[in-house]
Amino acid sequence: MTPEGPYPPMDDDHFHDECGVFGIFGSPDAAAHTALGLHALQHRGQEAAGIVVFNGEHFQSHRALGKVGDKFGKQAIIDRLKSKMAIGHVRYSTTGEALFRNIQPLFADFEFGGLSIAHNGNLTNSYVMRRQLIRQGAIFQSTSDTETIIHLVARNDYPKVIDRLIYALQQVTGAYSLVALTREKLIGVRDPRGVRPLSLGRLGDAYILASESCAFDIIGAQFVRDIDPGEMVIIDRKDGRIRLRTHKPFQSQAHRFCIFEYIYFARPDTRLEGRSVYEVRKEIGRELARECRAKGIVADMIVPVPDSGVPSALGFAEEARTPFELGIIRNHYVGRTFIEPSSNIRHLGVKLKHNANAEIIKGKKIILVDDSIVRGTTSQKIIEMVRQAGATEVHMCIASPPTTNPCFYGIDTPTRSELLAANYDIEDTATQIGADSLTHISLDGLYKACGEPGRDIETPAYCDACFTGDYPIPLVDHEDGGPPAQLSLLNEQGIF
Amino acid sequence: MTPEGPYPPMDDDHFHDECGVFGIFGSPDAAAHTALGLHALQHRGQEAAGIVVFNGEHFQSHRALGKVGDKFGKQAIIDRLKSKMAIGHVRYSTTGEALFRNIQPLFADFEFGGLSIAHNGNLTNSYVMRRQLIRQGAIFQSTSDTETIIHLVARNDYPKVIDRLIYALQQVTGAYSLVALTREKLIGVRDPRGVRPLSLGRLGDAYILASESCAFDIIGAQFVRDIDPGEMVIIDRKDGRIRLRTHKPFQSQAHRFCIFEYIYFARPDTRLEGRSVYEVRKEIGRELARECRAKGIVADMIVPVPDSGVPSALGFAEEARTPFELGIIRNHYVGRTFIEPSSNIRHLGVKLKHNANAEIIKGKKIILVDDSIVRGTTSQKIIEMVRQAGATEVHMCIASPPTTNPCFYGIDTPTRSELLAANYDIEDTATQIGADSLTHISLDGLYKACGEPGRDIETPAYCDACFTGDYPIPLVDHEDGGPPAQLSLLNEQGIF
Amino acid sequence: MTPEGPYPPMDDDHFHDECGVFGIFGSPDAAAHTALGLHALQHRGQEAAGIVVFNGEHFQSHRALGKVGDKFGKQAIIDRLKSKMAIGHVRYSTTGEALFRNIQPLFADFEFGGLSIAHNGNLTNSYVMRRQLIRQGAIFQSTSDTETIIHLVARNDYPKVIDRLIYALQQVTGAYSLVALTREKLIGVRDPRGVRPLSLGRLGDAYILASESCAFDIIGAQFVRDIDPGEMVIIDRKDGRIRLRTHKPFQSQAHRFCIFEYIYFARPDTRLEGRSVYEVRKEIGRELARECRAKGIVADMIVPVPDSGVPSALGFAEEARTPFELGIIRNHYVGRTFIEPSSNIRHLGVKLKHNANAEIIKGKKIILVDDSIVRGTTSQKIIEMVRQAGATEVHMCIASPPTTNPCFYGIDTPTRSELLAANYDIEDTATQIGADSLTHISLDGLYKACGEPGRDIETPAYCDACFTGDYPIPLVDHEDGGPPAQLSLLNEQGIF
Amino acid sequence: MTPEGPYPPMDDDHFHDECGVFGIFGSPDAAAHTALGLHALQHRGQEAAGIVVFNGEHFQSHRALGKVGDKFGKQAIIDRLKSKMAIGHVRYSTTGEALFRNIQPLFADFEFGGLSIAHNGNLTNSYVMRRQLIRQGAIFQSTSDTETIIHLVARNDYPKVIDRLIYALQQVTGAYSLVALTREKLIGVRDPRGVRPLSLGRLGDAYILASESCAFDIIGAQFVRDIDPGEMVIIDRKDGRIRLRTHKPFQSQAHRFCIFEYIYFARPDTRLEGRSVYEVRKEIGRELARECRAKGIVADMIVPVPDSGVPSALGFAEEARTPFELGIIRNHYVGRTFIEPSSNIRHLGVKLKHNANAEIIKGKKIILVDDSIVRGTTSQKIIEMVRQAGATEVHMCIASPPTTNPCFYGIDTPTRSELLAANYDIEDTATQIGADSLTHISLDGLYKACGEPGRDIETPAYCDACFTGDYPIPLVDHEDGGPPAQLSLLNEQGIF
Repeated sequence: MTPEGPYPPMDDDHFHDECGVFGIFGSPDAAAHTALGLHALQHRGQEAAGIVVFNGEHFQSHRALGKVGDKFGKQAIIDRLKSKMAIGHVRYSTTGEALFRNIQPLFADFEFGGLSIAHNGNLTNSYVMRRQLIRQGAIFQSTSDTETIIHLVARNDYPKVIDRLIYALQQVTGAYSLVALTREKLIGVRDPRGVRPLSLGRLGDAYILASESCAFDIIGAQFVRDIDPGEMVIIDRKDGRIRLRTHKPFQSQAHRFCIFEYIYFARPDTRLEGRSVYEVRKEIGRELARECRAKGIVADMIVPVPDSGVPSALGFAEEARTPFELGIIRNHYVGRTFIEPSSNIRHLGVKLKHNANAEIIKGKKIILVDDSIVRGTTSQKIIEMVRQAGATEVHMCIASPPTTNPCFYGIDTPTRSELLAANYDIEDTATQIGADSLTHISLDGLYKACGEPGRDIETPAYCDACFTGDYPIPLVDHEDGGPPAQLSLLNEQGIF
Repeated sequence: MTPEGPYPPMDDDHFHDECGVFGIFGSPDAAAHTALGLHALQHRGQEAAGIVVFNGEHFQSHRALGKVGDKFGKQAIIDRLKSKMAIGHVRYSTTGEALFRNIQPLFADFEFGGLSIAHNGNLTNSYVMRRQLIRQGAIFQSTSDTETIIHLVARNDYPKVIDRLIYALQQVTGAYSLVALTREKLIGVRDPRGVRPLSLGRLGDAYILASESCAFDIIGAQFVRDIDPGEMVIIDRKDGRIRLRTHKPFQSQAHRFCIFEYIYFARPDTRLEGRSVYEVRKEIGRELARECRAKGIVADMIVPVPDSGVPSALGFAEEARTPFELGIIRNHYVGRTFIEPSSNIRHLGVKLKHNANAEIIKGKKIILVDDSIVRGTTSQKIIEMVRQAGATEVHMCIASPPTTNPCFYGIDTPTRSELLAANYDIEDTATQIGADSLTHISLDGLYKACGEPGRDIETPAYCDACFTGDYPIPLVDHEDGGPPAQLSLLNEQGIF
Repeated sequence: MTPEGPYPPMDDDHFHDECGVFGIFGSPDAAAHTALGLHALQHRGQEAAGIVVFNGEHFQSHRALGKVGDKFGKQAIIDRLKSKMAIGHVRYSTTGEALFRNIQPLFADFEFGGLSIAHNGNLTNSYVMRRQLIRQGAIFQSTSDTETIIHLVARNDYPKVIDRLIYALQQVTGAYSLVALTREKLIGVRDPRGVRPLSLGRLGDAYILASESCAFDIIGAQFVRDIDPGEMVIIDRKDGRIRLRTHKPFQSQAHRFCIFEYIYFARPDTRLEGRSVYEVRKEIGRELARECRAKGIVADMIVPVPDSGVPSALGFAEEARTPFELGIIRNHYVGRTFIEPSSNIRHLGVKLKHNANAEIIKGKKIILVDDSIVRGTTSQKIIEMVRQAGATEVHMCIASPPTTNPCFYGIDTPTRSELLAANYDIEDTATQIGADSLTHISLDGLYKACGEPGRDIETPAYCDACFTGDYPIPLVDHEDGGPPAQLSLLNEQGIF
Repeated sequence: MTPEGPYPPMDDDHFHDECGVFGIFGSPDAAAHTALGLHALQHRGQEAAGIVVFNGEHFQSHRALGKVGDKFGKQAIIDRLKSKMAIGHVRYSTTGEALFRNIQPLFADFEFGGLSIAHNGNLTNSYVMRRQLIRQGAIFQSTSDTETIIHLVARNDYPKVIDRLIYALQQVTGAYSLVALTREKLIGVRDPRGVRPLSLGRLGDAYILASESCAFDIIGAQFVRDIDPGEMVIIDRKDGRIRLRTHKPFQSQAHRFCIFEYIYFARPDTRLEGRSVYEVRKEIGRELARECRAKGIVADMIVPVPDSGVPSALGFAEEARTPFELGIIRNHYVGRTFIEPSSNIRHLGVKLKHNANAEIIKGKKIILVDDSIVRGTTSQKIIEMVRQAGATEVHMCIASPPTTNPCFYGIDTPTRSELLAANYDIEDTATQIGADSLTHISLDGLYKACGEPGRDIETPAYCDACFTGDYPIPLVDHEDGGPPAQLSLLNEQGIF
């Protein structure tokens, strides 16, 4: 019953994107397209998914814990959701919460009709607003910050839903890319800083909104453009034709797109803010190779930590003119639970997912390329594994700067005390993970790989708070002391 | 996934109680006692159950579709709910609703702390109030009328929860027996008419509230008294001792306890309003026997339709000095679904649950005793079955007057057009069900069996609207046109 | 996963029939009729059921753990089993065995075609035969003694399956009522002593075999006659017409039908060996009343322990001219598991299923009537419960003699050391269970109620080994030392 | 309930290995090690798995449909299987069979004690033997050919189990790598041709047998050597020490290891017959590049069809000095079922698993490298997808010769009529799949990549029947007309 992450915690040492969103207006297969789009966005949230449609008469919804392909694949489900407009959401949830209530899209009945909302991101003043709303008699059913937006929509007197939504979003701070569905409209909004991605696509007459462009590809739709930071698009039908209108209801602010989307979160076949994610990753690898060369690091082969390290390792190998080899093989059949290792069976976690390709790396000096280090647990086990397989030197090269700060903008990160780089310097970290050397790409090198001349300290082009602690959006709740006690008042279980 | 009733619809021809409630304060085994109490009340609602506890720090909840014994029996569940105060609810739900959201007790976070409510009954102005609340920005998550009460509690400024609850209940009309739990108090309330039952019990220092006294017996508690119509009891701890205070916050009204609780809903081992249900049923049987004798109906044996017809058949046989025989045997292993009969296999439904004891009834004149007739489908099949088994005469005697009107006070009844007695007179009904004669107890006879001299037309002692159409509480929603359209706006499915 | 009995072990103090069988030949709805017949026989085995059909081309099977109504009710299952000939089986299984493999009917491919067998009873030389067969190279897949018969069929050279089956049955000893299905025939056999029941019914042209006649009633079939002890009936089609032939392939032996079928196992609406089970039970009650009267036992009311004590209590009350009252109420919603009582919650078991009707029994002398006492645990708790409810005297009257010996003929009984009556005399037992007096019907009284003048010591009419230790069929395995070690060699789990 | 393959049939165009085996003797964690070993071998069979252990007293077994990581990961399961000797099996099963009965390891009770067997491969005279055994009275419970071996073991008089097993294997023909467990011994056998792999490993004192060496790595064991074709190894304990003895009980035959294990079945990190699978695959890529160069095929980039085409694409890119690019991205979240495409949603299948990386391949000439083509359906869709993404030329290069013949040695292959290469020549195939050119590596090229000078027509070093139709082991059943009718006599379903 308790849903678990796709991999056992012990060997999953990554930041996690918490959500992906999708919306479509004007397709006769809106629900099927949404299910497919969510499938393409599954890497942004593996634990739960939901679709809400309006079929001309009623709103219909299907929400489930589990993968889209497992829980939304049946024809009967798609048939029940038959409609021309739909929004959907995939979600990575943290344990301990009342899981089902939090699965988006959320929905509420209003006097003017129903409204359904799903978002990717995190409000930074959600609890402060929540407290205020509860004081005014609002009753919260979830711990999701999307519900805060819904109550703000409910509690104002604008006659039009768009104005109510604008009003609501003006009260909140945070990072969000949001899709909403009324009886007549599909709405997309990106926060003024544009931290999280949202793109516009087209399939015939239909418009599509999705966190990443790979969700367009799966249904044969065309990428049109990114939604701008602070932009609200409204898609509806006027005189029988589908139209898209755009607003900029917020005060303009400097853009700060999340640079970690390029490093790890997005799929390599996605295009974000005008750049191919795959190409950026390869370029990060090339830049990293140049920085390593400057440090005098050489090896017999470049070995990616699969799968996320592969594109940067390819770029690295190209630049370093060193053979690229699959020195670590990944087992894709990892189950939900596996035997907890007894004292006799140590360091098992990593081997459930990875194996050293001993025939290749035996007696070799290798450069391992990975995208990031969070707690360092996986890195340590992988290095131990490749050494046992006979590697004579192991140099760890990381396609991101040291992650020293947690994210408050919609990414699941450990607390600062658990972040290896927040507590140790590079040399100590190298010792801790057992590497002969450890190289992170420099912050400027990373910006260069993203097409900038380097990081402009005054107005950095990206949100890089996890590396720098420079948070572009105020952390209102955090400074207020975090989630209030009563949020966890009701710890619910059950159902079947 | 779709939960079904305990018996296939085809052979289930009864009104159904929709709920049972239980609450306990001051027991170290509060959750276990609540689970047991709900098990004893299972006949009041077989489809879902829920328990909410406050453990001194947090509210914890477990809700499930299914039977209490199946879904709340595991030690791990009870351990998670470890506490000294708890409320619980069993529920019979009608299909098509978003089932899980409606399982009680409902819970809400308030500024002053959490509040959980469960009730047995039905508000008759729920939708009218709901519409008004939505207009004011309230967001409803269920279609349960309990949520209307919760929003009314949320939207007033009384500093004390008791005053807020009183205010809320003053806004609603309807029949309800309600239990509520705050961080410090267990509260019990019965509507001013006292339509639905609620009793007070005691186990050591602990106080208990339950729909029926049989829920006290299972945990070894003592019956103390019925909660009065219009009474609110508040149980909490003062200076280390458990105390019970009582209020009468509503304008006094003539009491109208549901007379059908005596006929069918309550368990025979329960005591209601000072009377043993079993004794009342036997007395109804005796009264019915006298009325039948007056009509000249005689037989070789009295046969109950098991199990609900047994006590009145015993009384009947005693008064008629005619042998009581188990001429119909019940199979208790009826599953959730069974083969729909093809045209070759007719009248199967009733045989899944009942079989004629042919050796006994062959060649005999029999009087069948049943508690009530709703649609008449079961009666027809049972009479056909006993005739095929060789009974020469079949006289049907019913321990209630003809049911001609639906209930709006918390009982699941068919619409008027489906009620056999609302559409046919006694003689036509007898023909329709194939009986040689059909006798319903008279309304006065029924009142006599309940200890009254007869039915006082001006101020009847009981609610008997299903027999008379005399509804003691205004049917506000019903006259307003029933549930509003948007109630069914979101048709949700999914989860696992 | 581990299926459990219908009631928690703590309050289930009965011998259990281990099986029921059903077979039908010549009905276009053979599978549906079999499912219904098994539903009517569910009381003979609640834990697993199976159906095998031959559809003219293939044998098809469906087997499941659980109730017939839950697991065979879906149209899709019945459609897949579409056929004109079928056999079925319900089973009560003891824990620890490889459950699924043992669900009957068993099936085997032979050179001459498939054969499927199901039986009710127990072979008393099964393990001895099994050891011999394994030595000859037979490979057993279950621990069921039915498989022994199947291997014996496989290992002989008779060209006809009937001759092979006769040969096989001639090698075994034990009590069995067996149904078998080949590509062309339905076969029914009863062991030479006729310990377990088997009856023949007819529905149109179709022939039916069933453990009890109540299985005919549910499908509208007529009871024809009991199969004789030692009789084999063969039903097949000849020249387009269905015919039934009968054989007596075994040496004739005195009949010894199980007398406990009358006392408890069979349904009251069944007819066995020419007698109505309900009538026998009432007569046992009358006889018991006479024996009690002789002892001077009187009371204010007769209270049955529901449900099995009801018919004898009715007979008792009639004979004793004492009111029959439902002083104990049964809760039919008992789930599969329930909270294990902590030390604070004692004697809970019995209350999950029963409650004293305190309003009725308070201040009264009562006679409790039950069918039997096995370990005595339930009796003790029930007596304690009725005393707590205010009964002033409690006399326990039992509709069977003391059960002092285990059964080896297909009934699940505890070992001798657990049988209360095997270890204590009547007076000590009365003290142990807390009764003011304890009366068992005498052995002669029981025989009288069954239409005999009394028990003929030389040639008793019934098998009454559980009361007398007089085992009519040799206990070969038992004397050989019981099941061999290798039977439990493979302890299997898993599947889903 | 019906288990399905890991991918929807529509986009799964590969031969499938049907099994993997594992055995261990002398480890205190035998069951945990076996579960881990099977997890490492999961690619050889994803649909069911089983483990049998002998714990010194009893054989214990756990079998399940599903993935090892999902179904064998719980500590409680491993604890129940606590032992020092174990065998295990993973299985890819074809639909329509009585699934559960066929899950290996199979087990049988013998006079001398239990024997459990699991094998990877296929007997080619299984049905002929089966028919003969049934005629002699053997009763089969599965359709697995392993059961044929078990019956042959049962039906001979050798006093020692090893001699019985040798006798049994001398009666059968086919390809098999087998592990067996008795109360005292772990046995491993490879068929005389050595078609399927089996390796020996060591962990401390314990010996291990596994289909592939990657199963040693996961538990930290050392690869010792391949078991020889026709070799039987017997591992037991003598005077307290673990010993390994070896036999060659069969007439010596020329070895014919399956060359397709190198191409696709085995994991790249496995070592087979003295060669690294990864290195062979890269060498095949290099050889293929040379053959393409000779044909004048050039491109801007080498794109692997992930994941199986990656190693040969790396070798190809290296030899062709052309950039290797991830032009196709794989989605690893493919669920068990997904929406069947309506006519509006065409060619969906492949996109559930793959997406073209359009930013990279737009406007480019590409060489796609894949391991094999079976039906050609996936190739066609992938080529269409990359063209739609903007590739200007698409050359398909395949790391195996055309597959023109089905396999009868333990690999799941379509019938000849479904094999694209059996029905079209290269040019027509290229047209059919839409490629600008199609190049398969030559048979000699493949042998060269495997270290041979080329294919020796007289005594080829490998079994290459799928390319050549040269079947080294007689196809007895096949020539006899295939599986007999009665194999499918009992079509069983049910359980839960």
